Amino acid sequence: MPPSPSVAAGTHVDAVPTPALIVDERRLHANLDRAQAYADAHGVTLRPHAKTHKSPALAREQIERGAVGICVAKLGEAETFAAAGIDDLVMANTTVGEGNARRAARLAGRVRFAIGADHPQQLRELSAAATAEGVDLRVRIEVDTGAGRGGQPPEAVPALAALARELPGLRLEGLYTYEGYTYDAADAAALRERHLAAQRTLTNVVERVESSFEAPPVVSMGSTPSLAAEVPLLPGITEIRPGTSIFFDAAQAALAGGLEQCAAHVLATVVSRVGPRAILDAGSKSLTTDTRAAGVCATRGHGVLLETGGVVARLSEEHGVVEGDDADGLSVGQRVRIVPNHVCPVVNLFERLIVVRDGRVVRVLPVATRGRVD
Amino acid sequence: MPPSPSVAAGTHVDAVPTPALIVDERRLHANLDRAQAYADAHGVTLRPHAKTHKSPALAREQIERGAVGICVAKLGEAETFAAAGIDDLVMANTTVGEGNARRAARLAGRVRFAIGADHPQQLRELSAAATAEGVDLRVRIEVDTGAGRGGQPPEAVPALAALARELPGLRLEGLYTYEGYTYDAADAAALRERHLAAQRTLTNVVERVESSFEAPPVVSMGSTPSLAAEVPLLPGITEIRPGTSIFFDAAQAALAGGLEQCAAHVLATVVSRVGPRAILDAGSKSLTTDTRAAGVCATRGHGVLLETGGVVARLSEEHGVVEGDDADGLSVGQRVRIVPNHVCPVVNLFERLIVVRDGRVVRVLPVATRGRVD
Repeated sequence: MPPSPSVAAGTHVDAVPTPALIVDERRLHANLDRAQAYADAHGVTLRPHAKTHKSPALAREQIERGAVGICVAKLGEAETFAAAGIDDLVMANTTVGEGNARRAARLAGRVRFAIGADHPQQLRELSAAATAEGVDLRVRIEVDTGAGRGGQPPEAVPALAALARELPGLRLEGLYTYEGYTYDAADAAALRERHLAAQRTLTNVVERVESSFEAPPVVSMGSTPSLAAEVPLLPGITEIRPGTSIFFDAAQAALAGGLEQCAAHVLATVVSRVGPRAILDAGSKSLTTDTRAAGVCATRGHGVLLETGGVVARLSEEHGVVEGDDADGLSVGQRVRIVPNHVCPVVNLFERLIVVRDGRVVRVLPVATRGRVD
Repeated sequence: MPPSPSVAAGTHVDAVPTPALIVDERRLHANLDRAQAYADAHGVTLRPHAKTHKSPALAREQIERGAVGICVAKLGEAETFAAAGIDDLVMANTTVGEGNARRAARLAGRVRFAIGADHPQQLRELSAAATAEGVDLRVRIEVDTGAGRGGQPPEAVPALAALARELPGLRLEGLYTYEGYTYDAADAAALRERHLAAQRTLTNVVERVESSFEAPPVVSMGSTPSLAAEVPLLPGITEIRPGTSIFFDAAQAALAGGLEQCAAHVLATVVSRVGPRAILDAGSKSLTTDTRAAGVCATRGHGVLLETGGVVARLSEEHGVVEGDDADGLSVGQRVRIVPNHVCPVVNLFERLIVVRDGRVVRVLPVATRGRVD
């Protein structure tokens, strides 16, 4: 099948076919430095979540700056990064089924790999697979500190930790939580309080299960919200896994210091004007329909236009519609830069990240784990 | 990069890694037949929109049943289908820029190709490119019958049609509209009235611009909503471009005859149970966050579970959460089939369509135009 039109290094950004996902190299480097500095300042290990960038090249840049390794969400992502030479991986997510447990055990035979668990059945399957493959498989127990998603509530964790300790082939490495729900806090101060509460919940659980660990446990938080809002990290937290902070996005801009912190945008073209409407060639297939309804990260519309400060008011698959005052001055053929509401699933829609410096393409990075939902 | 685990023909569906996009072959064939029968019954040409299936193999099945060719949304899709041997293509969308106009003209030199336009600048660029490439480029004018997206209002169409007629290298082939907004009607009867009104608007415009056409014009409607609701087509309508009807989805089920008409679903696994919640391994990266808020196609949640009739209540990127009564009876490791709210962008998230008959894989079709947003 023919690929998208090629974009060589040196190409002026005005000649890149739209829609395209553009990364501003200077802001990218600033965001990479900021994450490492935050981790260093709080004495914790940085393990960035690669779900945001999906790029082995960017994972290497994170590791070169001091990250211990990367975090992934799926076995397919772990397999892809391992094949690309990233040799320290944690899957901050759970899986079930014999086939998947085997994949996890095989990964542990090739690279340093740890996987999440929040249910006895998962642990038993992982134990059986690790035993069959003849490996020690590191596991981390997921603790629900308020997300209401995966992870067990604190009171259920000791039994799980004891089971992980007891089952052959498993090595209980630590605990982790995902506190992305703190984004819904009304303001930065409230987010700080919620984040500290999540940290306390997690460290309290650690105290209850310390006897299950052979070595000092890894105690791991999300944690772009804390990084963006400069929330302090309590003693006992040993690792953070920020993902979005490599780019930031429109939802996080208010927390992170403004739209000028956002390193990624969708480059689009005004394909038509119809009365008060400007029609863009970027729709939900480029921007997703993700919104954030309330709180400090609430968004309006479906992405912010850097040219006008307006928003994409409506989306269909291939079209974004800018209306009324927000469309003032936009003319047919004009290019606009849209900071998406939520950058992670936007990266997942594109084949490539086009890295730009001073208006010219410097690198084109494949989105290596796009579609690795398995 | 390593691909997703391979799935061979003959594999039992229970052994397919999840999440996966499954197509029920019997329902697929029934839906293909239904679209052709609707077009035949109303004496119009069928030109299915390939944005839904994104598969040259399925395009060929549509053409074998009587479709005149296919419809696409982007130049990248047209290029991909042309390379796969589909030789009659219409892009029911507009584009701008010299580079894109050249791509359109080159397509017209290789296959039967027509492209939409709704602005003088587009027409001038297409004319210049067609002249430079030495081809006749077919164009269709987009008419806004109420979508409030692209397309000009009826009163602006005669001037555009006259310009298309006058510019060298262009052959004005017809008019088209997109009436997907009729989905918002309160019930099937209201949808029927809105659809008929859109048809009347379009045919009235044709009468005002007839002198611009060299041959009898193509007059083209969307039009899964009319097909699903069995809306009659008025004299003067000559072509329909239904996309979603090949699969249908949860939003259209009420119109189309129920969930049993839906030919595609996301196969997912219950990875954990946490109290009243069942956690699925399919999130917004498999199901999208698309919803339809109101009207006959309103949806609840983020997809319907065929096993229980419940819905996915909440989504994050990799997780779907089923809550309360909807989660009753779901156990860890169980597989569930989720009919998505909006199937088109869901196909765009997967690498492959896994076609199943009697519980076994019969074909694995690449999603050939996934990511061809350009």
